[in-house]
Amino acid sequence: MSTVLYKRLALIGIGLIGSSIARAAKRDGLVESITTYSKSEATRAKALELGLVDTAVDSAEEAVRDADLVIVCTPLSAYAALGAVIGPHLKAGATLTDVGSVKQSVIRDLAPHVPAGVHFIPGHPVAGTEHSGPEAGFAELFRDRWLILTPVAGTDAAALQQLHTFWTRIGSKVETMEPQHHDLVLAITSHLPHLIAYNIVGTADDLQTVTKSEVIKYSAGGFRDFTRIAASDPTMWRDVFLNNKEAVLEMLGRFTEDLAALQRAIRWGDGQTLFDTFTRTRAIRRQIIDAGQETPAPDFGRNRPSGAGK
Amino acid sequence: MSTVLYKRLALIGIGLIGSSIARAAKRDGLVESITTYSKSEATRAKALELGLVDTAVDSAEEAVRDADLVIVCTPLSAYAALGAVIGPHLKAGATLTDVGSVKQSVIRDLAPHVPAGVHFIPGHPVAGTEHSGPEAGFAELFRDRWLILTPVAGTDAAALQQLHTFWTRIGSKVETMEPQHHDLVLAITSHLPHLIAYNIVGTADDLQTVTKSEVIKYSAGGFRDFTRIAASDPTMWRDVFLNNKEAVLEMLGRFTEDLAALQRAIRWGDGQTLFDTFTRTRAIRRQIIDAGQETPAPDFGRNRPSGAGK
Repeated sequence: MSTVLYKRLALIGIGLIGSSIARAAKRDGLVESITTYSKSEATRAKALELGLVDTAVDSAEEAVRDADLVIVCTPLSAYAALGAVIGPHLKAGATLTDVGSVKQSVIRDLAPHVPAGVHFIPGHPVAGTEHSGPEAGFAELFRDRWLILTPVAGTDAAALQQLHTFWTRIGSKVETMEPQHHDLVLAITSHLPHLIAYNIVGTADDLQTVTKSEVIKYSAGGFRDFTRIAASDPTMWRDVFLNNKEAVLEMLGRFTEDLAALQRAIRWGDGQTLFDTFTRTRAIRRQIIDAGQETPAPDFGRNRPSGAGK
Repeated sequence: MSTVLYKRLALIGIGLIGSSIARAAKRDGLVESITTYSKSEATRAKALELGLVDTAVDSAEEAVRDADLVIVCTPLSAYAALGAVIGPHLKAGATLTDVGSVKQSVIRDLAPHVPAGVHFIPGHPVAGTEHSGPEAGFAELFRDRWLILTPVAGTDAAALQQLHTFWTRIGSKVETMEPQHHDLVLAITSHLPHLIAYNIVGTADDLQTVTKSEVIKYSAGGFRDFTRIAASDPTMWRDVFLNNKEAVLEMLGRFTEDLAALQRAIRWGDGQTLFDTFTRTRAIRRQIIDAGQETPAPDFGRNRPSGAGK
């Protein structure tokens, strides 16, 4: 299991995701050396201090120059300019991938800068926590989580297979998908949930009739669940919404329509509609647990009672 | 710590909450005996089988007849009829309380049936999991969670103190509040979050363009968080919305208004509004963690890496 898959790995950006890749790739001996470029000098210093990388350089050109695998791990808003900078310095035969949460915009922003002979294969690990920065990463982040590749037309089969193997060795389950379909699927499974969570936490924060200390005290009634994803990185999420506008607006339209129906049921005392809606949602959680994508422990296992159910 | 506080405890309904009270009261020696009445014969048999109660009777009248403390743990829709049934059989000097998630409706439905000499003190433990039934309960459910009492005018101070002590001994932190204020606070911290969660899970379930298996596969992107509270008991939650209509509609109106502003920001590419909204929400989670109402572990501790942050 210690076959080196890529000699030199370059991580452009080394936050939660980039640093988790570094940890897993080192642990499993998937690469010989890792270099990183981060815009922030403090982040570069932290990556070295944590032993995540062998070198940290102060330009993206330098980071990619000799790299066999380049993984872009920055917010989406940095991609277009970054593509222009690194394009001319990518090594022939190298693979360029990324971890961005939107895939059509990534192809729009990076593809024009990729020279012939470089394998450009966009990717997205469906994994994360609400924490950010190089300290927040951990090698197990990708274990049993899905990694979606959205290869463009004419992608080299061997290069695709190599990247597939890299992510599998890191612990991911790998799926291939059309970029447009990816953006629609993620709009409902990830982007809309984040928008809704940010929104309700914002609504609660604004309340004058209920003091903020009461919102915090009684948050165990359900509200606290939403604060987790609403604590996610603001720059990353701003960029997701700016770059997946159509799909998010489509899913948001459906959500709002459904919510209006529930609002009407509450106003008119239509208990049957409420009951029917609340009943069918239980089955979905069961399926997510059965698919290995969620813990079966009550309350996410927050409150692990030794005698629960006894 | 083993002083008996109430000789005989009667639990009307013994699901997640009722059975957790039974477990905690037995463990801590707070009562001498526990009886229960549940509409369902299977639930009564299960409560006996699990050793949660000393007796299980087949009428509510019989359950309350000799009880010193009666706790109503049924869905809210059962309260009015139950009040009419038990009212004449409550013992002089007994305390009648409940665990319902709405408090104005509980006073409306129960108070008219409470005879003079019986202490009626509505209560609400802000605790729970997405599971239901007597098997789902555990004694630690109330540990460090808030219990809200909404006493009516003229409540006997000694009876109130006794009930306060009962919940404190079970592990709760106890707060007293006006019923109307309770219903407003819980509308934002509990009822609206459940409505939103049920709604987004329903929206996802309806999608034809994204298959259901994709919603489940990629749920770790955020969606799965919502499925937890959307797996809560449908009858209980139907009743909450039917009985706290005004406060829920008020909070829902604010939420929808705020969501429209975010929708507009996405449509017009207003990154600054998105960034500002997504930034201020982080602080709230920090405060909830500091208040001991949430785990500091990333991802609710679902994914407990031994080397996280190292």
